[in-house]
Amino acid sequence: MNSEAATARIVMERCDILGGISEEVGCLTRPFATKAMQRVNDTVAAWMQEAGMRVTRDAIGNLIGRYEGRSAAAKTLVLGSHLDSVRDAGRYDGPLGVMVALACVQRLHARGERLPFAIEVVGFADEEGMRFSRSYLGSRAITGTFDSTWLEVRDEHDISMAEAIRAFSGSAEPQELAEALRTPRWLREELLGYTEVHIEQGPVLEEMGLPVGVVTAITGQTRLRIGFTGMAGHAGTVPMSMRRDAFSAAAEFVLAVEGIARSMPGLVATVGQVNVKPGVSNVIAGQVTLSLDVRHQDDTIREQALLEMEARGRDIGLARYVTFVWQPLEAHDAVPCSTYLTQLFVRAIEEVEYPVQRLPSGAGHDAAIMSTLTGMAMLFVRCKGGISHNPTESVTSEDTGIAIDVLERFIKLLAQEARE
Amino acid sequence: MNSEAATARIVMERCDILGGISEEVGCLTRPFATKAMQRVNDTVAAWMQEAGMRVTRDAIGNLIGRYEGRSAAAKTLVLGSHLDSVRDAGRYDGPLGVMVALACVQRLHARGERLPFAIEVVGFADEEGMRFSRSYLGSRAITGTFDSTWLEVRDEHDISMAEAIRAFSGSAEPQELAEALRTPRWLREELLGYTEVHIEQGPVLEEMGLPVGVVTAITGQTRLRIGFTGMAGHAGTVPMSMRRDAFSAAAEFVLAVEGIARSMPGLVATVGQVNVKPGVSNVIAGQVTLSLDVRHQDDTIREQALLEMEARGRDIGLARYVTFVWQPLEAHDAVPCSTYLTQLFVRAIEEVEYPVQRLPSGAGHDAAIMSTLTGMAMLFVRCKGGISHNPTESVTSEDTGIAIDVLERFIKLLAQEARE
Repeated sequence: MNSEAATARIVMERCDILGGISEEVGCLTRPFATKAMQRVNDTVAAWMQEAGMRVTRDAIGNLIGRYEGRSAAAKTLVLGSHLDSVRDAGRYDGPLGVMVALACVQRLHARGERLPFAIEVVGFADEEGMRFSRSYLGSRAITGTFDSTWLEVRDEHDISMAEAIRAFSGSAEPQELAEALRTPRWLREELLGYTEVHIEQGPVLEEMGLPVGVVTAITGQTRLRIGFTGMAGHAGTVPMSMRRDAFSAAAEFVLAVEGIARSMPGLVATVGQVNVKPGVSNVIAGQVTLSLDVRHQDDTIREQALLEMEARGRDIGLARYVTFVWQPLEAHDAVPCSTYLTQLFVRAIEEVEYPVQRLPSGAGHDAAIMSTLTGMAMLFVRCKGGISHNPTESVTSEDTGIAIDVLERFIKLLAQEARE
Repeated sequence: MNSEAATARIVMERCDILGGISEEVGCLTRPFATKAMQRVNDTVAAWMQEAGMRVTRDAIGNLIGRYEGRSAAAKTLVLGSHLDSVRDAGRYDGPLGVMVALACVQRLHARGERLPFAIEVVGFADEEGMRFSRSYLGSRAITGTFDSTWLEVRDEHDISMAEAIRAFSGSAEPQELAEALRTPRWLREELLGYTEVHIEQGPVLEEMGLPVGVVTAITGQTRLRIGFTGMAGHAGTVPMSMRRDAFSAAAEFVLAVEGIARSMPGLVATVGQVNVKPGVSNVIAGQVTLSLDVRHQDDTIREQALLEMEARGRDIGLARYVTFVWQPLEAHDAVPCSTYLTQLFVRAIEEVEYPVQRLPSGAGHDAAIMSTLTGMAMLFVRCKGGISHNPTESVTSEDTGIAIDVLERFIKLLAQEARE
């Protein structure tokens, strides 16, 4: 076994170890600020120290390992991902990125190599937002974009976020805590950028037969609630010509949405949640509510698609005498990756002689929040069947080895450029 | 006010009175074999006696008033409908038919008129089947088509049907009860037929601007469970071209079903129940279950429609790499109305100078069960907005007057024919 393969094997083993640290027996569930997170932080902190890093934890409980650069005045490259999980999770979503980053630093340390910049590896304390239904708590706190009103939000056991944080990270007074969460860890000018390795959580790389891909942007997203109100009626007594069937209208809309999404390259649109009232087999649907989730890496294309979908919905409603309601719930713009950092990833992949596949990230990541403070780039690693948020989540040791190799070359290229 | 209008007014008042007798405060809910049913039976029994009828109750609790014919050897015309209700019901579904029949006998009695046949007015003890999830208990018992194994079925309070019947009708030993429920009240040759007046529970008569209509048949019905199994996936990361979205497949099927139903006159097909898994806004649907309810008065047309729907479902599944499951749950054939009795209704309507509207009954009725013993016919009365099984169920006094007039003429025509 060569040294890259041995490093990959260690990363895989470490993901297995972390995957066994859970709040639930028999499955991996690691919410923010729990005992399982504490154990994971302790475990990873030890590995960071082994890799020659100085370890700290911030006010919200992010774990940060710092590997100093050649000079104290050096800038900092931040690498990272999250250490929390969803309920009944896989073991790679989050931890893989932290372990790959750690492996690269470990190898620098083993060679006694110092770079013209410091590296900080961050294990974010919360990205999934499972416990408090608020996402990216870790990266929001570290970038000073945390909304302090969230401290009042309570989990299912009626514990407030402030109480949970205090118990978890031992932070002092509420006032101090709110202040700490509003303060970015770094000044903009101290940073070289942020880079995250993450499993793809989609099927594209597997379909292309590629171990890794470079992310172009984190897609913009609009979430909506769609309503159709027709007229409930007896399934036996209302002739087809006299029906105002809300579910038939909804079905027509779903196909229209699919058609529009298929016609616009890169667009994804999903109706995943459906509620039909009264929802009885012998009663014509009177009311249907759908969720609609639309994403694209280009905000103008997403906006265009939404206009078309809304127009189609209105037409369908008018033609069927069914009331159509279009209710946007939430929207956020696309976050483009740094051209400069992404180009370094492209060169690194070319060096290891793989075709360069560029793809957007349809899922959100800490990188999106980190981009408020510095340029960011992401490397995706192929996962089996595109499956994530599921215990069957799977990544090969070979692909992990390639990801380590690419990230190491990325760091080297950045070091060369920094030196020039 | 003429005497027909006064009679209609009495029928409306009686429906109001019965509508106030409920097991629930604030709404009309009158399940089988309850105190409310007992009070309704007592109330209607008194009205029957007033109308010169001899009143009995059978083993299951059907209320039967007999108005003797001219001779003891005369045959019997049975008129009736049910006195139980659904939860939060309207006041006309069932009781209107009993009250209209009763009004006709009352008028015969007032004139001291005897016919060449006896009339029995039946208030069926259970048609809706709410309490035990088994329908037509009353008409099944009276026709001897009752399934005795049902006596073991328990309601939500864990009371068995046998216990409920014993408490309600004071029937003797289990053995005797089962025997009584298996024995038809009449011999086939004793009966002239069964006739039921009922609200339409649909919008056709209102749309046509007609107070009454003649039923051609009670439609045949097939109930199915339809399944689509695709592949769940992340709403952001799976490109449209790589999706196997079970809900898009289901939507396409729903529109295909609607198209087929529209293309076949008289066919109705309804998808009223929808279950989407995992049912989360940011996850592509992996699995969808639909209910499908298909009805027509001609069984061959219904069978043809089902074949076409199944074929379309298979095609949609194949094209989308989604597994399609077609699972028939329950089917019953259409029950045609007696040509002879129906023709008498047609003549009666012509006499009162209304256009004759023939229409199928998409809902089931006691008449369907009674047809196992004798020819049956039904007269539908317009109801507001086609709404039924709802407290807003509404019938006008004028339409009720016309229904009384038509049923009275029907009886007169039958008497003339019986005399000839």
